[in-house]
Amino acid sequence: MTVFPDFASIEMAHKRIEAYIHRTPILTCETLNRIADAQLIFKCENFQKVGAFKFRGASNAVLQLSEKEAADGVTTHSSGNHAQALSLAAKERGIPAYIVMPRTAPKVKVEAVKGYGARVTFCEPTLQAREEMLREVQERTGATFIHPYNHNHVISGQGTAAKELLEEFKDLDIVMAPVGGGGLLSGTAISTKHMAPNTLVWAAEPKGADDAYRSFHEKALIPSLQPQTIADGLLTSLGSITFQIIREQVDDILLAKEESIVKAMKLIWERMKIVVEPSAAVPLAAILDSPYRFKGKKVGIILSGGNVDLGKLPF
Amino acid sequence: MTVFPDFASIEMAHKRIEAYIHRTPILTCETLNRIADAQLIFKCENFQKVGAFKFRGASNAVLQLSEKEAADGVTTHSSGNHAQALSLAAKERGIPAYIVMPRTAPKVKVEAVKGYGARVTFCEPTLQAREEMLREVQERTGATFIHPYNHNHVISGQGTAAKELLEEFKDLDIVMAPVGGGGLLSGTAISTKHMAPNTLVWAAEPKGADDAYRSFHEKALIPSLQPQTIADGLLTSLGSITFQIIREQVDDILLAKEESIVKAMKLIWERMKIVVEPSAAVPLAAILDSPYRFKGKKVGIILSGGNVDLGKLPF
Repeated sequence: MTVFPDFASIEMAHKRIEAYIHRTPILTCETLNRIADAQLIFKCENFQKVGAFKFRGASNAVLQLSEKEAADGVTTHSSGNHAQALSLAAKERGIPAYIVMPRTAPKVKVEAVKGYGARVTFCEPTLQAREEMLREVQERTGATFIHPYNHNHVISGQGTAAKELLEEFKDLDIVMAPVGGGGLLSGTAISTKHMAPNTLVWAAEPKGADDAYRSFHEKALIPSLQPQTIADGLLTSLGSITFQIIREQVDDILLAKEESIVKAMKLIWERMKIVVEPSAAVPLAAILDSPYRFKGKKVGIILSGGNVDLGKLPF
Repeated sequence: MTVFPDFASIEMAHKRIEAYIHRTPILTCETLNRIADAQLIFKCENFQKVGAFKFRGASNAVLQLSEKEAADGVTTHSSGNHAQALSLAAKERGIPAYIVMPRTAPKVKVEAVKGYGARVTFCEPTLQAREEMLREVQERTGATFIHPYNHNHVISGQGTAAKELLEEFKDLDIVMAPVGGGGLLSGTAISTKHMAPNTLVWAAEPKGADDAYRSFHEKALIPSLQPQTIADGLLTSLGSITFQIIREQVDDILLAKEESIVKAMKLIWERMKIVVEPSAAVPLAAILDSPYRFKGKKVGIILSGGNVDLGKLPF
């Protein structure tokens, strides 16, 4: 029988990682409240270390390795926030991190990962090549693979963001998180359903990458094929663990139009004066696309991250 | 004899406006500390209402009008942050604001001012035309002219930002603010010299708009002629009051290269995940240009604002 993470594991994760993570600020914005005709409470994980919530899960996973496992280091394949998060978490424990990246990864991301002291191995930009190279690295180094989201310790770590939000705001009608692989959403759902059983948990997903939406409604894991969205953190498919948790504990998944994602991102930058990545703007985009569902509600939103290439902005 | 604002007037201003303004957050960033080899403490006025410190001074000026004066409203000529600040301050007191703007002002700025309920009068884009139109509006309405910086109540209001900073960080080696007309810098100097007499007050100014630097060193008010800088909040000349305060209470004015302003702005966006306007990045740019003067120091920096046209970014 598979054991899924529960709220106790999130509480333990929080104790384990709290000296390493930032307790990120929670912001509100009168203008956005007026636009949405709702009360929006933003949990700002763009201010988290490495600029994304991913550092919570990576830290929790790295800190749970035994001394023996830790000595051989950790590995993953990623060109995104998880790679940076795992690299920094490994650096803080003083163990090696081996990151497999496609040779087409943007130079700035490669440099960021190297800046945290990780060793980068390049591969061809296909899933098969990435997985093969990962196995090769594992065999060569003995490093432990830390999956970016389909991993109990990672999910428990991500759940600490919603836990912090609900510790300060107990009376939310809805909590929203974006969904890509489902790690953040799973952790958010577990924390919310335990701490505030009457609060709804809604995910937001780009219309152009709606595999979680379809999986949720068809009650079967449908992989993400050829996703088309600016929200580059939400391209992946759900995993076996995250899909199960989402099926059981998430109340609904809402879709956001591509132009609404850009509009929501611009609103957050202009009105809140903070830098968020497109993926982080997806919940607000979903609100703009379905305003009648939010009218008068008090809505907690996890702003997932702020890592964006300033040379390639959509506005 | 002219009476200049002193710390008592800043304390009174703070009591007067504190229910209206945001007490803005103070942020630090390990990466920027590492880059500067100094400890940087940022007072984030980009999170102030209307997105800039200007709301402090405008509120203080509007709240000090007598009932009779207030009834006739306030007026100014500005296409920048002061226009929005004065409009909102007037709206919050329930009195009219008349803003004279050049007919070439960006539509987004005109709309922002109108959004706060102000009445906009357009004029030709010359200083002479602006001043003539302002007189015309004053004669027609009886409104009180609130100068954007050369005004005791405005200066006292701006000084509350540094007061808040120094209430939390008493042991700064240096406090820095950008200088344009000198309202923020004057208020910052008065607060700092009273609250932390051993702390140095340094201004930062774009090399392409160095009139304050030259005025300071030549001990005579030199107007700003044909300034060339991306820092569009710092184009104006000092005023008679601000120049006098700066001469007496500011320890030095540092210049920042244009490319350093863009670099500093990008660093703040990328590393701190906050949106600041070019003018706000000038102190960090000055630090990057003269690193030896800051090595190992604890430096308070007023981030003046975050109003920037996302469609016209320099990177």
